[in-house]
Amino acid sequence: MGGAVRTGSASAQAAIRRGITYPRGFEAAGVHAGIKRRRPDVAVIRSTVPAAAAAMFTTNRVQAAPIVVSREQLERSGGWVRAVVINSGNANACTGPKGVEDARAMIGACALALDIQAHEVLVASTGVIGVPLPLDAALEGISRACGALSPGGAEAAAMAILTTDRRAKEIQLDVPLSGGRIACIGGMAKGSGMIHPNMATMLAFVATDAPVAPDDLSTMLHRVVDATFHLITVDGDTSTNDMVVLMANGQAGGEPIRPGSDDFARLEAGIERACSYLAKDIARDGEGATRLIEVRVLGASSDAEARVCARAIAGSSLVKSAVHGRDPNWGRIAAAAGYSGARMDPAAFRVWMGDVAVARDGREVPFDVDAAREALGAEEVRLTIDLGTGGPGSATAWGCDMSEEYVRINASYRS
Amino acid sequence: MGGAVRTGSASAQAAIRRGITYPRGFEAAGVHAGIKRRRPDVAVIRSTVPAAAAAMFTTNRVQAAPIVVSREQLERSGGWVRAVVINSGNANACTGPKGVEDARAMIGACALALDIQAHEVLVASTGVIGVPLPLDAALEGISRACGALSPGGAEAAAMAILTTDRRAKEIQLDVPLSGGRIACIGGMAKGSGMIHPNMATMLAFVATDAPVAPDDLSTMLHRVVDATFHLITVDGDTSTNDMVVLMANGQAGGEPIRPGSDDFARLEAGIERACSYLAKDIARDGEGATRLIEVRVLGASSDAEARVCARAIAGSSLVKSAVHGRDPNWGRIAAAAGYSGARMDPAAFRVWMGDVAVARDGREVPFDVDAAREALGAEEVRLTIDLGTGGPGSATAWGCDMSEEYVRINASYRS
Repeated sequence: MGGAVRTGSASAQAAIRRGITYPRGFEAAGVHAGIKRRRPDVAVIRSTVPAAAAAMFTTNRVQAAPIVVSREQLERSGGWVRAVVINSGNANACTGPKGVEDARAMIGACALALDIQAHEVLVASTGVIGVPLPLDAALEGISRACGALSPGGAEAAAMAILTTDRRAKEIQLDVPLSGGRIACIGGMAKGSGMIHPNMATMLAFVATDAPVAPDDLSTMLHRVVDATFHLITVDGDTSTNDMVVLMANGQAGGEPIRPGSDDFARLEAGIERACSYLAKDIARDGEGATRLIEVRVLGASSDAEARVCARAIAGSSLVKSAVHGRDPNWGRIAAAAGYSGARMDPAAFRVWMGDVAVARDGREVPFDVDAAREALGAEEVRLTIDLGTGGPGSATAWGCDMSEEYVRINASYRS
Repeated sequence: MGGAVRTGSASAQAAIRRGITYPRGFEAAGVHAGIKRRRPDVAVIRSTVPAAAAAMFTTNRVQAAPIVVSREQLERSGGWVRAVVINSGNANACTGPKGVEDARAMIGACALALDIQAHEVLVASTGVIGVPLPLDAALEGISRACGALSPGGAEAAAMAILTTDRRAKEIQLDVPLSGGRIACIGGMAKGSGMIHPNMATMLAFVATDAPVAPDDLSTMLHRVVDATFHLITVDGDTSTNDMVVLMANGQAGGEPIRPGSDDFARLEAGIERACSYLAKDIARDGEGATRLIEVRVLGASSDAEARVCARAIAGSSLVKSAVHGRDPNWGRIAAAAGYSGARMDPAAFRVWMGDVAVARDGREVPFDVDAAREALGAEEVRLTIDLGTGGPGSATAWGCDMSEEYVRINASYRS
């Protein structure tokens, strides 16, 4: 799929509709409220009709106020939302009872401006931990963003949720359903630092105009996240604020799409493509990253073990540094596989860098070092290991190389 | 204890005896065999009489040839050794059946040169993975090192086991036992990269002249390693070659020291002090590190949970980067505690940087930012978190800050 933008014939405004507002009935806006010094920092997403919603939240025991509050909101509304309000520049985490009040105030300001019920709004935050939210600025920004909502506001919203990201991350695609119906899917995400797959990974918002009930949407989201966001890693640190939200507002028309149907499978495949694209884009844009690393694990005892192993390799600082330096040090890949916990046969495993076979039967084979270096310098670096168990398990995980820049960014994030 | 060198009155050669040859009846040597370009790369340790020995090996599923072979040797000898031969510059890992043959050849050369039985020799290697050992050079170096063995050879041996370490790591101390006996303890270690506590951590050799039976020594070693080497982390990567060896040759005289006795407790405390010193020295000299980080966890449900939590904080790339930049970003400490798996109360935890309280009741308190920055710039940075569970669990782990240098070192280790 790559990063190709798919302009949907289903959309009358293909020229301006993209990302989170690509599906029918979604609007967005992004503004500068002053939480960050100069860049946009408040985004609002709105569905013109109530949308079924499912969400996954960080598994960190320290949960930011917006995580706590959004979880409550979904319970109160039974899985229906009209809007999501997001700020960057401040995580509203480790901010005590006042933080929860502030998150609720953000929701209140959004509901008031849009004239909807408060329980129909979700809230998300990202940025520095432990610093009180500048509430007045946030509230003023929310009300301004609500006034600016439009089907053309996706890019501004995608920009407003970024922190140390270098690029906005957006996706849109069409899924043909039965009977000539077309479901549009759109999404946006932010990542960059404190990224490790242990539930949702940082902030991702995905919308579709297909009709799906909240419970079915939740089932779909869990499966999709396991195969996408849970398989990326930047630095092994799981955030206090991770959140993935999937909304379906039914504006494509027709009856609700039920699990077990062909349409459900097609829609889920489309949602997975969108999430996979966003997940890889997060890995590619990891703090200090210069290129994407795709780790493929074969010959594992099970898919579950292959996933653990692929994540360990993608997360190894030594592997990431070696890729950065184009150093064909395949032993680090074997070592990371070895400590991952996945079963492997030390006398039978194989390793490839790109298409270059560098190890077989657990030891080095003569290989073209220049070709291996070239593979490590590719924009998308592919590392493959066959664990040699003869089992059917396989998985792919994504990460990024580690450059000196990672340290520079994180040595002075707060100050 | 610090790094103070304790010259033992028990030793007639206090001026030159240090490190691994500080206890009576141990000799060592280090030479340049040509496995590395310029620096010394082969070390031999010898006990003039058979020494009881216990060892712990890496838990990585990919185990280097010397790990496999040394484990066999200990089984064959019933826990008695006369010598340990070590090379740096090549890990002899992922080298197939030839690697095992090479490790055995190293043992054979050592046994021949010292006129001892082959099963009385252990072997250890550290360096690049997946490259065949230059055996001829290693064998020539071993025979030369055996000829150079002396009570004054500790420093040369400590230098010869290093890879990217910037400094040799040595320790010596005395333990007064009952009846006027004094046990001498000495040790040396290497660390630097691919360091993560999941069994022994890289190479450490500790010797004492106290009399202890092999099984009792093994019990002691496991307890000591859990409280020392298992609590340090540099980069989260567990090596294929980690090994800790503890030898006791009885040259201090007297009856074997039995578990349950006061002398056993005193000796164990001494061994723990030596291992703690070496473990901290490994963390302090982590690749690219500029200072030691000591993470203390209080108020955990159990010591086990406190250890997991302390290791997660010490291992967080974000915490390590923040310390490097003297950025009092305490939220990263809370976030790492939150994903560690240890129970914590998000509304009750407290955080200190040095002596500066920065968070209480799960949120920031007004604090002196300059004082916090100063604490983060100390040579030994102390970070403390009380998890707020009210439980009795506590633990201390050690790590190091992460600088741009870490990436520079590891981007071109092999090439």
